[in-house]
Amino acid sequence: MHLYGYYRSSAAYRVRIALNLKGLDYDMTSVHLRDGNQFDPDYVKLNPQAQVPTLVLDDGTPLVQSPAILEYLEEVHPEPALLPADTMGRYRVRALAAVPGCDIHPIGNLRVLKHIQQTYGQDMAAAGQWAKHWIELGYTGLERMLADSSETGRFCHGDTPTLADIFLMPQMYNAIRFGVDMGQFPNIQRINDANMELDAVQKAYPDNQPDFEPA
Amino acid sequence: MHLYGYYRSSAAYRVRIALNLKGLDYDMTSVHLRDGNQFDPDYVKLNPQAQVPTLVLDDGTPLVQSPAILEYLEEVHPEPALLPADTMGRYRVRALAAVPGCDIHPIGNLRVLKHIQQTYGQDMAAAGQWAKHWIELGYTGLERMLADSSETGRFCHGDTPTLADIFLMPQMYNAIRFGVDMGQFPNIQRINDANMELDAVQKAYPDNQPDFEPA
Repeated sequence: MHLYGYYRSSAAYRVRIALNLKGLDYDMTSVHLRDGNQFDPDYVKLNPQAQVPTLVLDDGTPLVQSPAILEYLEEVHPEPALLPADTMGRYRVRALAAVPGCDIHPIGNLRVLKHIQQTYGQDMAAAGQWAKHWIELGYTGLERMLADSSETGRFCHGDTPTLADIFLMPQMYNAIRFGVDMGQFPNIQRINDANMELDAVQKAYPDNQPDFEPA
Repeated sequence: MHLYGYYRSSAAYRVRIALNLKGLDYDMTSVHLRDGNQFDPDYVKLNPQAQVPTLVLDDGTPLVQSPAILEYLEEVHPEPALLPADTMGRYRVRALAAVPGCDIHPIGNLRVLKHIQQTYGQDMAAAGQWAKHWIELGYTGLERMLADSSETGRFCHGDTPTLADIFLMPQMYNAIRFGVDMGQFPNIQRINDANMELDAVQKAYPDNQPDFEPA
């Protein structure tokens, strides 16, 4: 398989973690989002939304949209499982994953921060405050969901990583970047620390990617 | 089952369509989002994020996050199917669903539009332009995805409604509200029209809800 991504893209980072956890081999091509390389017409043929990631299967089929890619990988490569065996567990993992996936990351990603700066005459610091606001709001709910359930374990759900952790970790990278005080969110912090011990996460971590650029 | 929702919430509208398509009975309680009733402490016990929808099962278990609720309903009430029988079809439907689910709706919903007005001193017309921008950008990619595939039928995938249609229809309500020129998106418009013919969609349509308030 071949993954088109970008070191700092949350959605690409999710797919890297999943591929690593499942022990699947893949090559990578970096699509430089800040330089606008996602708009290259050849790339748009692979990814009609001009976004990353795109996971190209060995038969050449390009897959887009990280939530759909992750469910696909889980169906085709079920071991190790990233969704629980029981229906209520699968519901809970998908609900936890949707907090960063739908309620935090989309509102604070690069294209949105750029649009705020251009449209409302804000600087990057103000755009960072915008991102921080949505992370803290989403984490407030997520922390409650984790604190209130006996199914929360060493990871978001039980003692092995699931899709919920895969969505959380890229959000954590941004939470740190935008200065979120994690003292407010002890369960999220604890689960982040457990995930950071995994080789699959370390190998997927933005700063460890070949296209990483120091700030 | 009991659904806590709001007539104009896209996420609640998704769940209403799915329940209707599957012929499941449910009662409804309206949570008035513009009046802030989602922050009522009793409601937050059901929904730790203070959002809608919440679907309370007959045993009292509250389910949150519409993407997770929809996958749950599909697992527990598999007929009529809202996901295709084949892996690649399920991938495609989930990818199409993620365009409004992750790349459009989260950036333009009520709480975000309110925050833009408060933080950047914009009026509702400017906030509407913001919403329209993200709908048009997302629809540009979605239109390509629909136009370029032989699997697009009367609906987003084939000739019966799937999760992709369920995510599309609430986005269409907002596209019309914010004045998107649908002439740019003939496949999306055609699929919207097919969905609007379904009783399940009509019954779920915001203007047909008991808590509907004319503008």
